[in-house]
Amino acid sequence: MKKTICSILAVTCVCASAFAQTPSPLNLDGKSYPCINPDKSVTFKFTAPDASSVTVDCGKSYQMVKDANGVWTATTDPMIEGFHYYSYKVGGISFTDPNAYTFYGTGRDCSALEVPETAEKADYYTPKKDVPQGAVRSLRFYSKACGEYRRMYVYTPAGYDENQKQRYPVLYLQHGGGEDERGWIYQGHADVILDNLIAEGKAEPMIVVMNNGYAKHPGSTDSFDAFEEMITEEVIPLVDKRFRTIADCDHRAVAGLSWGAKQAYDLALGYPQYFSYVSGFSGIIVIGE
Amino acid sequence: MKKTICSILAVTCVCASAFAQTPSPLNLDGKSYPCINPDKSVTFKFTAPDASSVTVDCGKSYQMVKDANGVWTATTDPMIEGFHYYSYKVGGISFTDPNAYTFYGTGRDCSALEVPETAEKADYYTPKKDVPQGAVRSLRFYSKACGEYRRMYVYTPAGYDENQKQRYPVLYLQHGGGEDERGWIYQGHADVILDNLIAEGKAEPMIVVMNNGYAKHPGSTDSFDAFEEMITEEVIPLVDKRFRTIADCDHRAVAGLSWGAKQAYDLALGYPQYFSYVSGFSGIIVIGE
Repeated sequence: MKKTICSILAVTCVCASAFAQTPSPLNLDGKSYPCINPDKSVTFKFTAPDASSVTVDCGKSYQMVKDANGVWTATTDPMIEGFHYYSYKVGGISFTDPNAYTFYGTGRDCSALEVPETAEKADYYTPKKDVPQGAVRSLRFYSKACGEYRRMYVYTPAGYDENQKQRYPVLYLQHGGGEDERGWIYQGHADVILDNLIAEGKAEPMIVVMNNGYAKHPGSTDSFDAFEEMITEEVIPLVDKRFRTIADCDHRAVAGLSWGAKQAYDLALGYPQYFSYVSGFSGIIVIGE
Repeated sequence: MKKTICSILAVTCVCASAFAQTPSPLNLDGKSYPCINPDKSVTFKFTAPDASSVTVDCGKSYQMVKDANGVWTATTDPMIEGFHYYSYKVGGISFTDPNAYTFYGTGRDCSALEVPETAEKADYYTPKKDVPQGAVRSLRFYSKACGEYRRMYVYTPAGYDENQKQRYPVLYLQHGGGEDERGWIYQGHADVILDNLIAEGKAEPMIVVMNNGYAKHPGSTDSFDAFEEMITEEVIPLVDKRFRTIADCDHRAVAGLSWGAKQAYDLALGYPQYFSYVSGFSGIIVIGE
């Protein structure tokens, strides 16, 4: 009898697991699709009775199939865990999913889905009740180099407001190509990761400054030609004035992702009087012209 | 001769004015459409050679017309100055414009355009170099009432970091239906308006707290049933702990737009021990059940 119960339980578990679908955590509240299947494939579904052909592109392109009710469906191959941009395509137009949040990536506001990791693997970027939380500030500033008002994001660690005597080192952190100053916070959970690392004693409390890397002189066709001038002549003095930084090159680092890594190398190697540390993730180095 | 030159100049000016089109300020960098015409009508244009029918909805719906190159165009009636949500529709699907920034409104991330006002009329929400600027902080917090991590935005006025002894009154400010905690900053420029008002001496320096009004108990089907509990039992204590507030009801106000106005009235009238001031913009009052 005991064996039978065990067998039934085992079968029940297998079935439950086989049919367990989870809506992507980046869906709007109450929206079921896209959903993640147990094998980490993703099922997309939405209603568009008048469309004649729909594809979904999430790194690979999939033709969707319409049922009698005008509902289009596609299921992908198993996907890598984590964050993915995606878009639908109808009539030659690429567009975002009305059922999911968008994030600025691929040079536009773009739909995204999350293939969840195990709790253990996601631990480092999961907010926790027992971890003191910092804050992210959005600051507008006028850039003479670019001839426009711009926005930067600044992470200050937990305790920044309370410990009024404490000064902090600063990390300048740049997003990848097609993203902007929001990327490290909204896509990358940089604030949560830092809260967790600092609470564990794995990172020193620091200020993190995130700017839009697309910074050009007025009228220029080079999207980046004002970036270094803006950071060194405008952003660093402003941050050192507005925040309790340790304002010397020994306490100033720069890092970035992809194109942002290239910008980080250029800043660190070109302006050693400002930066003593540099790091690049999936970086690009451009040699020569 | 002089008269001729004057006439030519006059004709040139008329022509220049008649054909002066301005890309919406909410377009992505370098994108020409939607553009605003001198009569404040808006022209939408984009390429979709494979689509069979496209409409654009910006309050009123307009059928777009395709040319031989597959470019769809529509021009609206003259529109009211200011911020407008819009969407395209193809094959029964409503979608955002890949050429413009999106804003969380209408219950989803939605395209928006701006019909510019005169510099004089836009003065109060235009950032200015000679006006000291505050900052907007994004804070994550765990809400027991909602059983989830949530985000709030907090505006602190210019001088908040420098004047460590000063304490400030607090305004709790709620967005309209279909928007979220970002609406007052990203669509409404609340931070710039406050910077300008405070600099002119027309508003007292204050802290402004913006929360997502969609706040429900875990598993509830009522999108708002945890809102008042969350604000009074969780948000207010957290704000009074984290910021240099004057933590009494005489220095605490609540206001909101549309559905947010209803929430503001409910808070002020239901919890007079917390709030001494209330304001509603385009408000809703629900009488009875």
